Amino acid sequence: MAFGGQNESCMEISKSYPMNGGESAFNYAQNSGYQRGVIDAARNIIAEAITQKLDIKNPTTPFHIADFGCSTGPNTFIAMRNIVEAVELKYQSMQQGSAQTLEFQIYFNDHADNDFSILFKTLPFNPPYYSAGVPGSFYKRLFPKATLHFVHSNYALQWLSKVPEEVQDEKSPAWNKGKTYCTWTKKEVREAYYSQFKNGWTSFLDARAEELVEGGLMAIQLPGIPHGAVPSQTGAGMLLEILGSCLDDMAKRGIISEEKVDSFNVPLYFPSVQDLEWMIVMNKKFTIERMELLSQPEKDSFDPILKSLHMRAVIEGIIIDNFGTKIVDELFDLFTKELDKKRDVCENELRTDVDLFVLLKHKLSGY
Amino acid sequence: MAFGGQNESCMEISKSYPMNGGESAFNYAQNSGYQRGVIDAARNIIAEAITQKLDIKNPTTPFHIADFGCSTGPNTFIAMRNIVEAVELKYQSMQQGSAQTLEFQIYFNDHADNDFSILFKTLPFNPPYYSAGVPGSFYKRLFPKATLHFVHSNYALQWLSKVPEEVQDEKSPAWNKGKTYCTWTKKEVREAYYSQFKNGWTSFLDARAEELVEGGLMAIQLPGIPHGAVPSQTGAGMLLEILGSCLDDMAKRGIISEEKVDSFNVPLYFPSVQDLEWMIVMNKKFTIERMELLSQPEKDSFDPILKSLHMRAVIEGIIIDNFGTKIVDELFDLFTKELDKKRDVCENELRTDVDLFVLLKHKLSGY
Repeated sequence: MAFGGQNESCMEISKSYPMNGGESAFNYAQNSGYQRGVIDAARNIIAEAITQKLDIKNPTTPFHIADFGCSTGPNTFIAMRNIVEAVELKYQSMQQGSAQTLEFQIYFNDHADNDFSILFKTLPFNPPYYSAGVPGSFYKRLFPKATLHFVHSNYALQWLSKVPEEVQDEKSPAWNKGKTYCTWTKKEVREAYYSQFKNGWTSFLDARAEELVEGGLMAIQLPGIPHGAVPSQTGAGMLLEILGSCLDDMAKRGIISEEKVDSFNVPLYFPSVQDLEWMIVMNKKFTIERMELLSQPEKDSFDPILKSLHMRAVIEGIIIDNFGTKIVDELFDLFTKELDKKRDVCENELRTDVDLFVLLKHKLSGY
Repeated sequence: MAFGGQNESCMEISKSYPMNGGESAFNYAQNSGYQRGVIDAARNIIAEAITQKLDIKNPTTPFHIADFGCSTGPNTFIAMRNIVEAVELKYQSMQQGSAQTLEFQIYFNDHADNDFSILFKTLPFNPPYYSAGVPGSFYKRLFPKATLHFVHSNYALQWLSKVPEEVQDEKSPAWNKGKTYCTWTKKEVREAYYSQFKNGWTSFLDARAEELVEGGLMAIQLPGIPHGAVPSQTGAGMLLEILGSCLDDMAKRGIISEEKVDSFNVPLYFPSVQDLEWMIVMNKKFTIERMELLSQPEKDSFDPILKSLHMRAVIEGIIIDNFGTKIVDELFDLFTKELDKKRDVCENELRTDVDLFVLLKHKLSGY
């Protein structure tokens, strides 16, 4: 997904850094195999959930599905097809003998900066649904009231709408000097990040509660932190540590300024199961129907080049915004070399990563 | 609008040449003042039609409006705002005292090749509607059944899904040698173009009849031919004649091949009122609620440079597809000079141009 964004409410100025679009070797479409693995891992759980939990009174045609933070495909097309097939199966079994055919309208959402051109040009041929693109930040309302039947989001809701201001402010106790992400080594940094994450999720849940029909379902997958671990012990944390060390190295060699490295933070937060559960319960608009760790989708052996391409497809926009375009090639060359040096550690860390899956149901009135 | 396009049915292979996108001086956004004039001219008629003719049983919120062939804005935003305001006014007067607020979902349709990125990035700030982009040719189904309440299309339905094959075939009696558009000087050429136009319109009407709710309205504006005139006597025809003469000139100077000029035809058809009426009546799915000539929106004095920019924004894609990018600057320089030489004739011809407006209502069942 692209995160942050324009057309935001004036209350919150945020930025948008889409996943890499275009047709180059660095694009998201070709470098999102990991995220695809997460979709595959969630497929059966979502299908089961649709069979058991989808319980919309008077289901009307068309059936509306929205994918929030869809990026450029093909992952979103695979996820949408999985959901459509599961819903079709469910309604076929319910409406035996009925001539009514369910039609599907799919809404692909991401920021206006997302490469919607590539998304639209690579839409599946003759899919079993009608397609529309919806530009805008998912931290605000994007649809009329009570129009969506199923909401999906894969690997998008770990992105904050912006970096918490305190962590970039050297006068703040939450100044995150020398680190590029939320490491938990400093309580104030963690609190600043968590607060931003909580605000974003609350906005997301509030907006979706308005947009979903009563009983509508929401399936979300995002990277998380295993119970008892800290971010630097996760694969994603380790990758960000290595990226930070590459930036430090380039600063020492005078290629970029140390101040810029000090003030650089990625707007990512990896929640624990408890983080998520607490927020959803406090929000009161959804029931948690399922919440679990997805079985690790990364089965292939660790490849430094592929991992570096993956990281670049996701994070290049933020790097460019902070350091300009000139350093990008050198930074990722260095990053690839470092990954190669630390191949064994990387492989082990990435194998213990967890992805969180939550299935939420929009509460019926009167609950 | 962009016309033709991918994701078409396999039955018909067609091409897509979007209006110029991007941010250059040649883009459609800055060079579509004429089309904007047509929207202004239609504004009051549409508002009146909504007041008098919009008669949807149990109007539900959200109210769905689609603009077919929207291009990149800002024209489409102006047209959509006009419609939203008129519908709001109508329902406010009907629902006095009711607390229900009508929400609007706007679908911006054009080909996948259209510059949706620019469209999305220039969406009005905080508009009174939710926005979605719908990629694909409007000559096929793009929405689920009975979902649209109001359909709009401005200056799009004169574009054919492709150039009729016969007019490009030197063995056919309809070969349009030496001409770049449908001139009516040869009966077979006119018939080939009209047949393509009729097929397209029939597909459009059939698709929209499925997508509109019963009683839903459709407002269409497109350039036409005044009663008793022939295409070369219209402003658009004259511009295409001049463009053709510039291509001839470049062929004579050996810059492009004569064969290429002979086989070059623009996929445009300017219908008469009778053409349109006949097609709509024969289609049987809509009643004609209004049909009229719009009062001429072009009031400013003729400016060869602006007119050339306007033509380039619309037609550059087709020129490039046929002749490559290299000739474009020279061709439009030449075109601007020719327009300047023929300034008086151009001004007169363009002042007598007509635009057609039709308001159709989706027939209620049982009619």
